Amino acid sequence: MEILIVPYVRDSIEVDLSEKVVIVLDIFRATSFIVTALALGARRVIPVSTIPEARRLAGKGRILAGERSAEKIEGFDLSNSPSALRYFPLEKKELILTTTNGTKAIAKAKSAEYQLIGSFLNLSACARSAVQLERPIVILCSGTQGAFSLEDGVAAGAFIDTCLQMKPTFQMDDLGMMARESYQSWRRQGWNELKNSRGGRRIIELGLEDDLDYSLQIDRFPITPIVTKEGIVLMETH
Amino acid sequence: MEILIVPYVRDSIEVDLSEKVVIVLDIFRATSFIVTALALGARRVIPVSTIPEARRLAGKGRILAGERSAEKIEGFDLSNSPSALRYFPLEKKELILTTTNGTKAIAKAKSAEYQLIGSFLNLSACARSAVQLERPIVILCSGTQGAFSLEDGVAAGAFIDTCLQMKPTFQMDDLGMMARESYQSWRRQGWNELKNSRGGRRIIELGLEDDLDYSLQIDRFPITPIVTKEGIVLMETH
Repeated sequence: MEILIVPYVRDSIEVDLSEKVVIVLDIFRATSFIVTALALGARRVIPVSTIPEARRLAGKGRILAGERSAEKIEGFDLSNSPSALRYFPLEKKELILTTTNGTKAIAKAKSAEYQLIGSFLNLSACARSAVQLERPIVILCSGTQGAFSLEDGVAAGAFIDTCLQMKPTFQMDDLGMMARESYQSWRRQGWNELKNSRGGRRIIELGLEDDLDYSLQIDRFPITPIVTKEGIVLMETH
Repeated sequence: MEILIVPYVRDSIEVDLSEKVVIVLDIFRATSFIVTALALGARRVIPVSTIPEARRLAGKGRILAGERSAEKIEGFDLSNSPSALRYFPLEKKELILTTTNGTKAIAKAKSAEYQLIGSFLNLSACARSAVQLERPIVILCSGTQGAFSLEDGVAAGAFIDTCLQMKPTFQMDDLGMMARESYQSWRRQGWNELKNSRGGRRIIELGLEDDLDYSLQIDRFPITPIVTKEGIVLMETH
């Protein structure tokens, strides 16, 4: 059974996602945010592609979250800073989330049989959920504005490494081999170089370095978010 | 100044190559073959995209070389096996070469200001030539049938690493950071895992494992081939 990486999201995804498990990654932003929100008690996160769509769904006690160019949208309650989310009351809340890259990747992967939300924060739990579904796995890196992002690629390598430990018969492709090797190498050396990625430098410029340290923690939350028609919710574990 | 990777060649190359130095890589095949041929005394290598074009240019003592699906073409003198080339008389000969991926990559990069031919075999010499031209560098991985090839990606990481040692102010992108890290990691551990790449497995199936060991030798030849209107020739060094 195959485990593949899509290195970034452009206009369309060329890989056929039907009958597959897709794990969406947007490490420094959307997917670390979603994992944190659900781990801290939010009932669901509704991902939307546009700001007007987010505003239309507001009200009923919902929290509006999102960014454009990594900055909070006017009138919204939150940006998509995962570390800032920790200090916000979330218990049983619903969040509406729109971001530049992550929520678009989620929308483009809707043909997948199962769509899971991955990050370093829930690496082992999400990998285990994916492996237990017994389908080929596609790891979808959101990337940044149609280009490859280092942190998403290295996290994809972490997911490949973890899935292969759980099920050694998975077959990875050449990009997966490179991503896995770079993950193993950086795990030995520490994550500092990841902060020099294009996305990392942008976040440091905005004074949000806490987000980077926060998002690079492995296995902080033993949960798996799954995308459903009603939004993103906690997957029931077996 | 930037140093970027194009991870594989499809129908067109999206990066603007004008006023840039392009280093073309097709490690297990075409570019290791071209480097070897010129290092062993061939006068020039004429890359062509199709088999009929190769046949049209035959005669005048020229050697016909090439492959389709990694196998020799009927009636040709040679496949594109770089290791087999070592035992063939090449002194002052002209070679006509057509391959599935490498010669197509060369043809698609013709808008570059300078187009160099790279491999592990001529890593330091080719990197030095590229740096001395004082232009942004694009490392063009041929890949295999429109998909990423591990050995080309790792060699791209080797070129980035070597160019950065010569000129630390080069700026790499996120994919370059990953490729460089995987190269550094595998260089410490040995190259065996590279043979498990898709292209490596195919060559082993064909009984040509010698090609892999041969192509993974670093700095065997201190030469740089350059693409000119008259074919690929040795670049004059400064």
